[in-house]
Amino acid sequence: MLPEKKISTAVIKRLPRYYRYLGDLLENDVVRISSKELSERMKVTASQIRQDLNNFGGFGQQGYGYNVEYLYKEIGKILGLENKYNIIIVGAGNLGQALANYTDFEKRGFIVKGLFDVNPRLIGVVVRGIEIKDVDEIDAFVKENDIHMAALTLPKQKAPKVANDLVKAGVKGIWNFAPIDLNLPKGVVVENVHLLDSLMTLSYTISQEEKDQ
Amino acid sequence: MLPEKKISTAVIKRLPRYYRYLGDLLENDVVRISSKELSERMKVTASQIRQDLNNFGGFGQQGYGYNVEYLYKEIGKILGLENKYNIIIVGAGNLGQALANYTDFEKRGFIVKGLFDVNPRLIGVVVRGIEIKDVDEIDAFVKENDIHMAALTLPKQKAPKVANDLVKAGVKGIWNFAPIDLNLPKGVVVENVHLLDSLMTLSYTISQEEKDQ
Repeated sequence: MLPEKKISTAVIKRLPRYYRYLGDLLENDVVRISSKELSERMKVTASQIRQDLNNFGGFGQQGYGYNVEYLYKEIGKILGLENKYNIIIVGAGNLGQALANYTDFEKRGFIVKGLFDVNPRLIGVVVRGIEIKDVDEIDAFVKENDIHMAALTLPKQKAPKVANDLVKAGVKGIWNFAPIDLNLPKGVVVENVHLLDSLMTLSYTISQEEKDQ
Repeated sequence: MLPEKKISTAVIKRLPRYYRYLGDLLENDVVRISSKELSERMKVTASQIRQDLNNFGGFGQQGYGYNVEYLYKEIGKILGLENKYNIIIVGAGNLGQALANYTDFEKRGFIVKGLFDVNPRLIGVVVRGIEIKDVDEIDAFVKENDIHMAALTLPKQKAPKVANDLVKAGVKGIWNFAPIDLNLPKGVVVENVHLLDSLMTLSYTISQEEKDQ
Protein backbone atom coordinates (compact mmCIF):
# COMPACT_ATOMS: atom_id res chain seq x y z
CA MET A 1 0.00 0.00 0.00
CA LEU A 2 1.52 3.32 -1.01
CA PRO A 3 1.37 6.35 1.22
CA GLU A 4 -1.18 8.88 0.00
CA LYS A 5 -0.27 11.69 2.33
CA LYS A 6 2.98 13.38 3.21
CA ILE A 7 4.76 11.28 5.82
CA SER A 8 6.63 13.24 8.48
CA THR A 9 10.43 13.16 8.52
CA ALA A 10 10.37 11.76 12.06
CA VAL A 11 8.41 8.71 10.91
CA ILE A 12 10.69 8.22 7.92
CA LYS A 13 13.76 8.39 10.15
CA ARG A 14 12.28 5.63 12.30
CA LEU A 15 11.50 3.26 9.42
CA PRO A 16 15.09 2.01 8.91
CA ARG A 17 15.17 1.18 12.59
CA TYR A 18 12.01 -0.95 12.31
CA TYR A 19 13.54 -2.57 9.28
CA ARG A 20 16.74 -3.34 11.19
CA TYR A 21 14.85 -4.87 14.14
CA LEU A 22 12.61 -6.94 11.91
CA GLY A 23 15.66 -8.17 9.98
CA ASP A 24 17.26 -9.27 13.25
CA LEU A 25 14.04 -11.06 14.27
CA LEU A 26 13.95 -12.85 10.91
CA GLU A 27 17.56 -13.94 11.35
CA ASN A 28 16.50 -15.42 14.67
CA ASP A 29 13.56 -17.23 13.03
CA VAL A 30 10.87 -15.22 14.80
CA VAL A 31 7.70 -15.59 12.70
CA ARG A 32 5.25 -13.33 14.54
CA ILE A 33 5.58 -10.52 17.07
CA SER A 34 3.05 -8.48 19.02
CA SER A 35 3.34 -4.70 19.00
CA LYS A 36 3.92 -4.98 22.78
CA GLU A 37 6.91 -7.27 22.34
CA LEU A 38 8.32 -5.20 19.50
CA SER A 39 7.82 -2.09 21.61
CA GLU A 40 9.78 -3.61 24.51
CA ARG A 41 12.67 -4.52 22.27
CA MET A 42 12.74 -1.17 20.51
CA LYS A 43 12.03 0.90 23.61
CA VAL A 44 9.26 2.87 21.95
CA THR A 45 5.61 2.66 22.95
CA ALA A 46 3.34 0.12 21.26
CA SER A 47 1.04 2.98 20.32
CA GLN A 48 3.93 4.77 18.60
CA ILE A 49 4.61 1.64 16.55
CA ARG A 50 0.94 1.30 15.58
CA GLN A 51 0.74 4.98 14.67
CA ASP A 52 3.91 4.85 12.60
CA LEU A 53 2.82 1.78 10.68
CA ASN A 54 -0.71 3.12 10.20
CA ASN A 55 0.85 5.79 8.01
CA PHE A 56 1.39 3.04 5.49
CA GLY A 57 -1.86 1.19 6.00
CA GLY A 58 -1.30 -0.81 9.15
CA PHE A 59 0.02 -4.36 8.57
CA GLY A 60 -1.11 -5.79 11.93
CA GLN A 61 -4.19 -7.77 12.85
CA GLN A 62 -5.69 -6.91 16.22
CA GLY A 63 -4.71 -9.66 18.65
CA TYR A 64 -2.47 -11.50 16.21
CA GLY A 65 0.50 -9.15 16.11
CA TYR A 66 2.70 -8.69 13.09
CA ASN A 67 3.95 -11.27 10.63
CA VAL A 68 7.67 -10.50 10.81
CA GLU A 69 8.64 -11.48 7.28
CA TYR A 70 5.68 -9.71 5.70
CA LEU A 71 6.27 -6.53 7.68
CA TYR A 72 10.01 -6.66 6.93
CA LYS A 73 9.34 -6.93 3.21
CA GLU A 74 6.66 -4.24 3.22
CA ILE A 75 8.85 -1.76 5.09
CA GLY A 76 11.64 -2.66 2.68
CA LYS A 77 9.32 -1.72 -0.20
CA ILE A 78 8.39 1.56 1.48
CA LEU A 79 12.09 2.31 1.92
CA GLY A 80 12.55 1.80 -1.80
CA LEU A 81 14.68 -1.30 -1.25
CA GLU A 82 12.96 -3.36 -3.94
CA ASN A 83 15.02 -1.28 -6.35
CA LYS A 84 18.76 -1.54 -6.89
CA TYR A 85 20.70 1.69 -6.57
CA ASN A 86 23.93 2.35 -8.44
CA ILE A 87 26.26 4.40 -6.29
CA ILE A 88 29.52 6.18 -6.81
CA ILE A 89 31.80 7.27 -4.00
CA VAL A 90 33.42 10.63 -4.53
CA GLY A 91 36.39 11.02 -2.24
CA ALA A 92 38.42 7.83 -2.09
CA GLY A 93 40.40 8.57 1.06
CA ASN A 94 40.08 6.44 4.18
CA LEU A 95 36.38 7.02 4.69
CA GLY A 96 35.49 6.58 1.02
CA GLN A 97 37.46 3.35 0.90
CA ALA A 98 35.78 2.16 4.09
CA LEU A 99 32.37 2.77 2.48
CA ALA A 100 33.50 0.95 -0.68
CA ASN A 101 34.46 -2.04 1.43
CA TYR A 102 31.24 -2.13 3.44
CA THR A 103 29.48 -5.25 2.11
CA ASP A 104 26.24 -4.59 3.99
CA PHE A 105 25.35 -1.87 1.51
CA GLU A 106 25.32 -4.30 -1.40
CA LYS A 107 23.17 -6.75 0.51
CA ARG A 108 20.51 -4.03 0.63
CA GLY A 109 20.82 -3.24 -3.06
CA PHE A 110 23.26 -0.32 -3.00
CA ILE A 111 25.87 -1.23 -5.60
CA VAL A 112 29.15 0.69 -5.69
CA LYS A 113 29.95 1.24 -9.35
CA GLY A 114 32.72 3.82 -9.20
CA LEU A 115 35.23 5.63 -7.02
CA PHE A 116 36.51 9.13 -7.70
CA ASP A 117 38.97 11.53 -6.18
CA VAL A 118 40.67 14.86 -6.78
CA ASN A 119 44.03 13.62 -5.49
CA PRO A 120 46.34 12.52 -8.35
CA ARG A 121 48.10 10.09 -6.01
CA LEU A 122 44.87 8.14 -5.51
CA ILE A 123 43.77 8.05 -9.13
CA GLY A 124 44.47 4.64 -10.64
CA VAL A 125 44.57 2.88 -7.26
CA VAL A 126 42.26 -0.15 -7.20
CA VAL A 127 39.89 -0.67 -4.24
CA ARG A 128 37.79 -3.84 -4.21
CA GLY A 129 38.26 -4.26 -7.93
CA ILE A 130 37.30 -0.65 -8.73
CA GLU A 131 39.86 1.76 -10.11
CA ILE A 132 39.75 5.25 -8.63
CA LYS A 133 39.06 7.80 -11.35
CA ASP A 134 39.50 11.56 -11.63
CA VAL A 135 36.45 13.64 -10.64
CA ASP A 136 36.60 15.14 -14.15
CA GLU A 137 35.23 11.84 -15.41
CA ILE A 138 32.14 11.96 -13.18
CA ASP A 139 29.77 13.48 -15.74
CA ALA A 140 30.34 10.84 -18.42
CA PHE A 141 30.44 8.02 -15.89
CA VAL A 142 27.13 8.96 -14.23
CA LYS A 143 25.38 9.16 -17.58
CA GLU A 144 26.83 5.92 -18.96
CA ASN A 145 26.30 3.85 -15.81
CA ASP A 146 22.88 5.01 -14.67
CA ILE A 147 24.17 6.23 -11.31
CA HIS A 148 21.44 7.16 -8.81
CA MET A 149 23.40 8.32 -5.79
CA ALA A 150 26.79 9.56 -4.75
CA ALA A 151 28.47 9.29 -1.39
CA LEU A 152 30.50 12.47 -1.00
CA THR A 153 33.51 12.19 1.28
CA LEU A 154 35.65 15.01 -0.09
CA PRO A 155 37.05 17.81 2.11
CA LYS A 156 34.63 20.69 2.65
CA GLN A 157 36.56 23.00 0.29
CA LYS A 158 36.05 20.62 -2.63
CA ALA A 159 32.60 19.23 -1.82
CA PRO A 160 30.20 22.00 -2.96
CA LYS A 161 31.54 22.28 -6.51
CA VAL A 162 31.64 18.52 -7.01
CA ALA A 163 28.12 18.23 -5.54
CA ASN A 164 26.89 20.64 -8.19
CA ASP A 165 28.66 18.64 -10.90
CA LEU A 166 27.01 15.47 -9.58
CA VAL A 167 23.59 17.07 -9.80
CA LYS A 168 24.25 18.34 -13.33
CA ALA A 169 25.30 14.84 -14.33
CA GLY A 170 21.94 13.54 -13.11
CA VAL A 171 22.54 12.09 -9.64
CA LYS A 172 19.29 12.06 -7.62
CA GLY A 173 20.67 11.79 -4.12
CA ILE A 174 23.83 12.77 -2.28
CA TRP A 175 24.97 11.01 0.87
CA ASN A 176 27.07 13.82 2.23
CA PHE A 177 29.92 13.16 4.64
CA ALA A 178 31.68 16.47 3.95
CA PRO A 179 31.43 18.76 7.00
CA ILE A 180 29.45 21.38 5.14
CA ASP A 181 25.78 21.84 4.21
CA LEU A 182 25.17 21.61 0.49
CA ASN A 183 22.79 24.02 -1.24
CA LEU A 184 21.40 22.09 -4.15
CA PRO A 185 18.40 22.46 -6.45
CA LYS A 186 15.02 21.06 -5.42
CA GLY A 187 14.47 17.46 -6.35
CA VAL A 188 17.96 16.42 -5.29
CA VAL A 189 17.95 14.65 -1.96
CA VAL A 190 20.76 15.20 0.51
CA GLU A 191 21.31 12.98 3.52
CA ASN A 192 24.02 14.30 5.81
CA VAL A 193 26.34 12.30 8.01
CA HIS A 194 28.29 14.93 9.90
CA LEU A 195 30.66 12.81 11.98
CA LEU A 196 32.25 15.65 13.90
CA ASP A 197 28.81 17.07 14.79
CA SER A 198 27.89 13.67 16.16
CA LEU A 199 31.09 13.44 18.18
CA MET A 200 30.47 16.92 19.61
CA THR A 201 26.97 15.91 20.70
CA LEU A 202 28.66 13.11 22.60
CA SER A 203 31.21 15.41 24.24
CA TYR A 204 28.41 17.81 25.21
CA THR A 205 26.46 15.10 26.96
CA ILE A 206 29.52 13.68 28.71
CA SER A 207 30.61 17.11 29.94
CA GLN A 208 27.06 17.77 31.24
CA GLU A 209 26.99 14.41 33.06
CA GLU A 210 30.30 15.30 34.70
CA LYS A 211 28.99 18.69 35.83
CA ASP A 212 25.98 16.97 37.38
CA GLN A 213 28.10 14.65 39.49
CA MET B 1 27.28 30.96 31.32
CA LEU B 2 26.21 27.44 32.22
CA PRO B 3 22.76 26.12 31.45
CA GLU B 4 20.59 25.88 34.54
CA LYS B 5 17.72 24.02 33.00
CA LYS B 6 17.45 20.86 30.95
CA ILE B 7 18.20 21.71 27.34
CA SER B 8 16.17 19.83 24.74
CA THR B 9 17.87 17.24 22.55
CA ALA B 10 16.81 19.17 19.44
CA VAL B 11 18.71 22.25 20.62
CA ILE B 12 21.77 20.17 21.51
CA LYS B 13 21.75 18.54 18.09
CA ARG B 14 21.78 21.98 16.49
CA LEU B 15 24.72 23.32 18.51
CA PRO B 16 27.47 21.53 16.55
CA ARG B 17 25.99 23.01 13.41
CA TYR B 18 26.22 26.55 14.84
CA TYR B 19 29.76 25.75 15.90
CA ARG B 20 30.63 24.57 12.39
CA TYR B 21 29.18 27.68 10.72
CA LEU B 22 30.88 30.02 13.17
CA GLY B 23 34.18 28.18 12.62
CA ASP B 24 33.81 28.69 8.87
CA LEU B 25 33.03 32.39 9.40
CA LEU B 26 36.13 32.73 11.58
CA GLU B 27 38.26 31.07 8.90
CA ASN B 28 36.93 33.70 6.50
CA ASP B 29 37.80 36.51 8.94
CA VAL B 30 34.21 37.51 9.63
CA VAL B 31 34.24 39.41 12.95
CA ARG B 32 30.55 40.08 13.52
CA ILE B 33 27.30 38.68 12.14
CA SER B 34 23.66 39.58 12.61
CA SER B 35 21.18 36.87 13.50
CA LYS B 36 19.49 37.67 10.16
CA GLU B 37 22.66 36.99 8.18
CA LEU B 38 23.45 33.88 10.17
CA SER B 39 19.88 32.71 9.64
CA GLU B 40 20.16 33.16 5.87
CA ARG B 41 23.37 31.15 5.73
CA MET B 42 22.08 28.41 7.99
CA LYS B 43 18.56 28.33 6.54
CA VAL B 44 16.89 28.50 9.93
CA THR B 45 14.83 31.46 11.15
CA ALA B 46 16.55 34.26 13.05
CA SER B 47 14.08 33.72 15.86
CA GLN B 48 15.11 30.06 16.06
CA ILE B 49 18.74 31.12 16.42
CA ARG B 50 17.90 33.64 19.14
CA GLN B 51 15.77 31.08 20.98
CA ASP B 52 18.44 28.41 20.76
CA LEU B 53 21.17 30.69 22.04
CA ASN B 54 18.94 32.12 24.77
CA ASN B 55 19.02 28.66 26.33
CA PHE B 56 22.60 29.45 27.21
CA GLY B 57 22.14 33.08 28.14
CA GLY B 58 22.01 34.87 24.81
CA PHE B 59 25.39 36.17 23.56
CA GLY B 60 23.98 38.79 21.19
CA GLN B 61 23.48 42.48 21.67
CA GLN B 62 20.30 43.85 20.14
CA GLY B 63 21.25 45.67 16.93
CA TYR B 64 24.91 44.67 17.07
CA GLY B 65 24.65 41.02 16.13
CA TYR B 66 27.01 38.37 17.36
CA ASN B 67 30.75 38.57 17.87
CA VAL B 68 31.78 35.52 15.85
CA GLU B 69 34.90 34.55 17.76
CA TYR B 70 33.25 34.99 21.15
CA LEU B 71 30.17 33.00 20.16
CA TYR B 72 32.34 30.29 18.59
CA LYS B 73 34.34 29.94 21.79
CA GLU B 74 31.28 30.00 24.04
CA ILE B 75 29.48 27.34 22.02
CA GLY B 76 32.71 25.33 22.08
CA LYS B 77 32.65 25.55 25.89
CA ILE B 78 29.01 24.47 26.01
CA LEU B 79 29.88 21.51 23.79
CA GLY B 80 32.56 20.53 26.26
CA LEU B 81 35.35 21.26 23.78
CA GLU B 82 37.53 23.09 26.28
CA ASN B 83 38.37 19.61 27.58
CA LYS B 84 40.52 17.05 25.83
CA TYR B 85 38.96 13.62 25.37
CA ASN B 86 40.97 10.44 25.18
CA ILE B 87 39.38 8.03 22.75
CA ILE B 88 39.88 4.44 21.79
CA ILE B 89 38.55 2.90 18.62
CA VAL B 90 37.23 -0.61 19.04
CA GLY B 91 36.98 -2.30 15.67
CA ALA B 92 40.02 -1.56 13.53
CA GLY B 93 38.59 -2.57 10.17
CA ASN B 94 38.18 -0.08 7.35
CA LEU B 95 35.85 2.25 9.18
CA GLY B 96 37.84 2.15 12.43
CA GLN B 97 41.01 2.90 10.53
CA ALA B 98 39.30 5.71 8.68
CA LEU B 99 38.27 7.25 12.01
CA ALA B 100 41.83 6.81 13.34
CA ASN B 101 43.15 8.73 10.35
CA TYR B 102 40.64 11.57 10.57
CA THR B 103 42.77 14.49 11.76
CA ASP B 104 39.80 16.82 12.30
CA PHE B 105 38.92 14.95 15.47
CA GLU B 106 42.25 15.79 17.08
CA LYS B 107 41.93 19.44 16.14
CA ARG B 108 38.79 19.51 18.29
CA GLY B 109 40.45 17.77 21.22
CA PHE B 110 39.47 14.16 20.59
CA ILE B 111 42.74 12.23 20.91
CA VAL B 112 42.91 8.66 19.64
CA LYS B 113 44.96 6.73 22.19
CA GLY B 114 44.29 3.14 21.23
CA LEU B 115 42.92 0.78 18.58
CA PHE B 116 41.43 -2.62 19.36
CA ASP B 117 40.00 -5.50 17.44
CA VAL B 118 38.78 -9.06 17.85
CA ASN B 119 40.41 -10.24 14.63
CA PRO B 120 43.82 -11.90 15.23
CA ARG B 121 44.96 -10.87 11.76
CA LEU B 122 44.62 -7.19 12.66
CA ILE B 123 46.23 -7.35 16.08
CA GLY B 124 49.77 -5.97 15.92
CA VAL B 125 49.14 -3.96 12.75
CA VAL B 126 50.18 -0.31 13.18
CA VAL B 127 47.82 2.49 12.08
CA ARG B 128 49.06 6.07 12.34
CA GLY B 129 51.67 5.01 14.89
CA ILE B 130 49.19 3.06 17.02
CA GLU B 131 49.43 -0.70 17.31
CA ILE B 132 46.11 -2.55 17.18
CA LYS B 133 45.57 -4.51 20.39
CA ASP B 134 43.29 -7.38 21.38
CA VAL B 135 39.94 -6.38 22.90
CA ASP B 136 40.94 -8.43 25.96
CA GLU B 137 43.35 -5.63 26.82
CA ILE B 138 40.65 -2.95 26.85
CA ASP B 139 39.98 -3.00 30.59
CA ALA B 140 43.58 -2.38 31.64
CA PHE B 141 44.14 0.12 28.85
CA VAL B 142 41.09 2.24 29.68
CA LYS B 143 42.07 2.42 33.34
CA GLU B 144 45.73 3.19 32.71
CA ASN B 145 45.16 5.78 30.00
CA ASP B 146 42.19 7.71 31.35
CA ILE B 147 40.01 6.91 28.34
CA HIS B 148 36.74 8.87 28.18
CA MET B 149 35.10 7.56 25.04
CA ALA B 150 35.15 4.66 22.65
CA ALA B 151 34.19 4.57 19.01
CA LEU B 152 32.66 1.16 18.43
CA THR B 153 32.90 -0.14 14.87
CA LEU B 154 32.66 -3.88 15.48
CA PRO B 155 30.10 -6.10 13.75
CA LYS B 156 26.71 -6.19 15.47
CA GLN B 157 27.28 -9.71 16.86
CA LYS B 158 30.37 -8.56 18.77
CA ALA B 159 29.34 -5.03 19.71
CA PRO B 160 26.99 -5.51 22.71
CA LYS B 161 29.42 -7.60 24.81
CA VAL B 162 32.35 -5.29 24.12
CA ALA B 163 30.17 -2.25 24.87
CA ASN B 164 29.44 -3.73 28.29
CA ASP B 165 33.14 -4.35 28.85
CA LEU B 166 33.87 -0.75 27.90
CA VAL B 167 31.37 0.51 30.43
CA LYS B 168 32.77 -1.75 33.17
CA ALA B 169 36.24 -0.43 32.39
CA GLY B 170 34.97 3.12 32.99
CA VAL B 171 34.28 4.60 29.56
CA LYS B 172 31.71 7.44 29.79
CA GLY B 173 30.53 7.59 26.22
CA ILE B 174 30.21 5.27 23.26
CA TRP B 175 30.17 6.47 19.70
CA ASN B 176 28.36 3.51 18.21
CA PHE B 177 28.73 2.62 14.54
CA ALA B 178 27.60 -0.99 14.98
CA PRO B 179 24.18 -1.51 13.37
CA ILE B 180 22.53 -2.37 16.66
CA ASP B 181 21.10 -0.38 19.58
CA LEU B 182 23.09 -0.81 22.78
CA ASN B 183 21.33 -1.25 26.11
CA LEU B 184 23.72 0.23 28.64
CA PRO B 185 23.42 1.44 32.23
CA LYS B 186 22.30 4.98 32.95
CA GLY B 187 25.08 7.52 33.01
CA VAL B 188 26.76 6.08 29.92
CA VAL B 189 26.11 8.17 26.86
CA VAL B 190 25.57 6.51 23.48
CA GLU B 191 25.66 8.43 20.24
CA ASN B 192 24.65 6.29 17.28
CA VAL B 193 25.84 6.60 13.71
CA HIS B 194 23.80 4.03 11.85
CA LEU B 195 25.15 4.34 8.32
CA LEU B 196 22.78 1.88 6.69
CA ASP B 197 19.77 3.57 8.33
CA SER B 198 20.96 6.84 6.87
CA LEU B 199 21.40 5.33 3.42
CA MET B 200 17.89 3.83 3.59
CA THR B 201 16.43 7.23 4.45
CA LEU B 202 18.05 8.44 1.25
CA SER B 203 16.66 5.59 -0.84
CA TYR B 204 13.20 6.19 0.65
CA THR B 205 13.24 9.83 -0.36
CA ILE B 206 14.58 9.12 -3.83
CA SER B 207 11.99 6.43 -4.46
CA GLN B 208 9.23 8.82 -3.30
CA GLU B 209 10.49 11.59 -5.61
CA GLU B 210 10.40 9.14 -8.50
CA LYS B 211 6.83 8.10 -7.71
CA ASP B 212 5.81 11.77 -7.66
CA GLN B 213 7.18 12.41 -11.14
